[in-house]
Amino acid sequence: MRKRVIKDMMNRKILLRSRPQGWPTDENFEFQEAPLPQPGEGQVLIRAIYLSVDPYMRGRMSAAKSYVEPYRIGEVIEGGGVGEVIESRSDKFQPGDKVLGMLGWQLYGVADADKLRKIDEQTAPLSAYLGVIGMTGLTAYFGLMDIGRPKAGETVVVSGAAGAVGSIVGQIAKIQGARVVGIAGSDDKTAWLTEQLGFDAAINYRTTPNLKDALEKECPQGVDVYFDNVGGDITDAVIGQLNDHARIALCGSISAYNDSEGKDIGPRVLVKLIKTRSLMKGFVLGDYADRLPEGAKMLGQWLSEGKLKYEETVIEGFDRIPEALLELFKGTNIGKMLVKVG
Amino acid sequence: MRKRVIKDMMNRKILLRSRPQGWPTDENFEFQEAPLPQPGEGQVLIRAIYLSVDPYMRGRMSAAKSYVEPYRIGEVIEGGGVGEVIESRSDKFQPGDKVLGMLGWQLYGVADADKLRKIDEQTAPLSAYLGVIGMTGLTAYFGLMDIGRPKAGETVVVSGAAGAVGSIVGQIAKIQGARVVGIAGSDDKTAWLTEQLGFDAAINYRTTPNLKDALEKECPQGVDVYFDNVGGDITDAVIGQLNDHARIALCGSISAYNDSEGKDIGPRVLVKLIKTRSLMKGFVLGDYADRLPEGAKMLGQWLSEGKLKYEETVIEGFDRIPEALLELFKGTNIGKMLVKVG
Repeated sequence: MRKRVIKDMMNRKILLRSRPQGWPTDENFEFQEAPLPQPGEGQVLIRAIYLSVDPYMRGRMSAAKSYVEPYRIGEVIEGGGVGEVIESRSDKFQPGDKVLGMLGWQLYGVADADKLRKIDEQTAPLSAYLGVIGMTGLTAYFGLMDIGRPKAGETVVVSGAAGAVGSIVGQIAKIQGARVVGIAGSDDKTAWLTEQLGFDAAINYRTTPNLKDALEKECPQGVDVYFDNVGGDITDAVIGQLNDHARIALCGSISAYNDSEGKDIGPRVLVKLIKTRSLMKGFVLGDYADRLPEGAKMLGQWLSEGKLKYEETVIEGFDRIPEALLELFKGTNIGKMLVKVG
Repeated sequence: MRKRVIKDMMNRKILLRSRPQGWPTDENFEFQEAPLPQPGEGQVLIRAIYLSVDPYMRGRMSAAKSYVEPYRIGEVIEGGGVGEVIESRSDKFQPGDKVLGMLGWQLYGVADADKLRKIDEQTAPLSAYLGVIGMTGLTAYFGLMDIGRPKAGETVVVSGAAGAVGSIVGQIAKIQGARVVGIAGSDDKTAWLTEQLGFDAAINYRTTPNLKDALEKECPQGVDVYFDNVGGDITDAVIGQLNDHARIALCGSISAYNDSEGKDIGPRVLVKLIKTRSLMKGFVLGDYADRLPEGAKMLGQWLSEGKLKYEETVIEGFDRIPEALLELFKGTNIGKMLVKVG
């Protein structure tokens, strides 16, 4: 009987209709209704609860080679999500189980049981598995700890500091004993960073008359570690303040993601990196696949000890997923941007 | 009696008169005659034989903070050299000993005995101690082996490939089993690299119609390691060809050294480094002070085994030191640029 009801329901999906040139628009997305998919042997049917929108998705909408395959035209846009198992053809899951996986931009999805992780609402709210103890928290952890390697007393600067990754980076750097300076795009954000998250200082890059002067003031000992989420002019300014043997973890370059090819022009960093003998390294979470349990353990521990705080910006409604992605690029979110769909 | 003769001789020095804006000119240098200096206790008097001119010297002529102190106006320009001990007030050296040290741009200099290294003409020609088994060879060794870390079968690209550092980098990379592609500025240089030094390919950046196309052709498997001596457009093009997990050793950026502040503009590298998860690191030989014996041992061994070849461009005459430095920036040298003064 229960199965019957499900079958009468329709699925909704968002497909990539065309590749954006510059900022994504409605034209690039296609909403589609379809019957509920049927799980095969070893698979489960999942009803989405929260779907994640993340900056890396813009890269996958382009055809250019990158660390993950581009999205394909006419296919559901892939992305992380948490949901509830509705029907299971695997021993690993029962209907009602909550799971984390690559659910994609759809209300219902079928997934291989062994590509899903069962999550526990008692340990943390479902949404946290997409943020502070999920992909963005882990990204913060590995980029900072493996590339940035902050030492007590050093100065760590984080751009995109009020975002899902940056807000965790700064708090982990504080746990390591560093002086932490965040760069963000509104006074609400900078207030949140210093008053709630314990950042030593925060700079609103939209209102500061001179970012270089602001950095010099807030980083009187120079910059030892820079965790970069944004690129562009902000990064140019921070690189100007590097100390000898500085480390730069390149996590994102959101200011450039909607540029057309060849538009991201600025001062070359080579001479500065030589003079300071600094290291700059790009990374993605996938590079740390072998070490995920370590990261999850540390994040979970700090969260339970009250050393990590987080916020989420939750947009309600499946139809608003593309809008949520755009808002992310505009920087309207504080903390992890999520869409609640169920 | 012998001492008497020396005292009648005059020393000649080149002082920094003013800091160059752009390319150094005669105006920036002051030739001076002076009596021979007298060694104090624990010091020796040295007659210079070869003096080294190196790209880093341009940086020290500027007032800007860097990894070494700027040269001071009105003082002798510091630099490496080999010479002969004329008078010794130290047990460590006898007149006639050949030594390596920071002799500076002068015919005669006094130095602390413990800052000099005795060198042996039987092991290698005196000039080699300034090049292949000296500062430039060691710079090649540590930058390539510690940052580049080439593996057999990988592709290594070297810019400034016919220079003192680049020519050794390419040969060490060949010893490691890599495919080696050099970029240099004349057909004589590219012929030397491929025909004499064993580079797999060499590109003349001055005559190639399209450096990107040339790199794609010569690096069909992409670029895993880039050893950069030049910066600028050449480096922009190589970065476009990076493979995942590439390593870039930033040794020099000679194309930018004579630019005024803020003129070194180009495509930002951030997105590319993220997409490929590549590492870029600046270094100087001084960072490896603890490991110099290791480098010297390996270079000496490869040289004696005939695995390292080198050439020198020797300009004769003390008066021509500033000219030699300029020629270095014009790229007229093949291999190490030296001035023979005695």
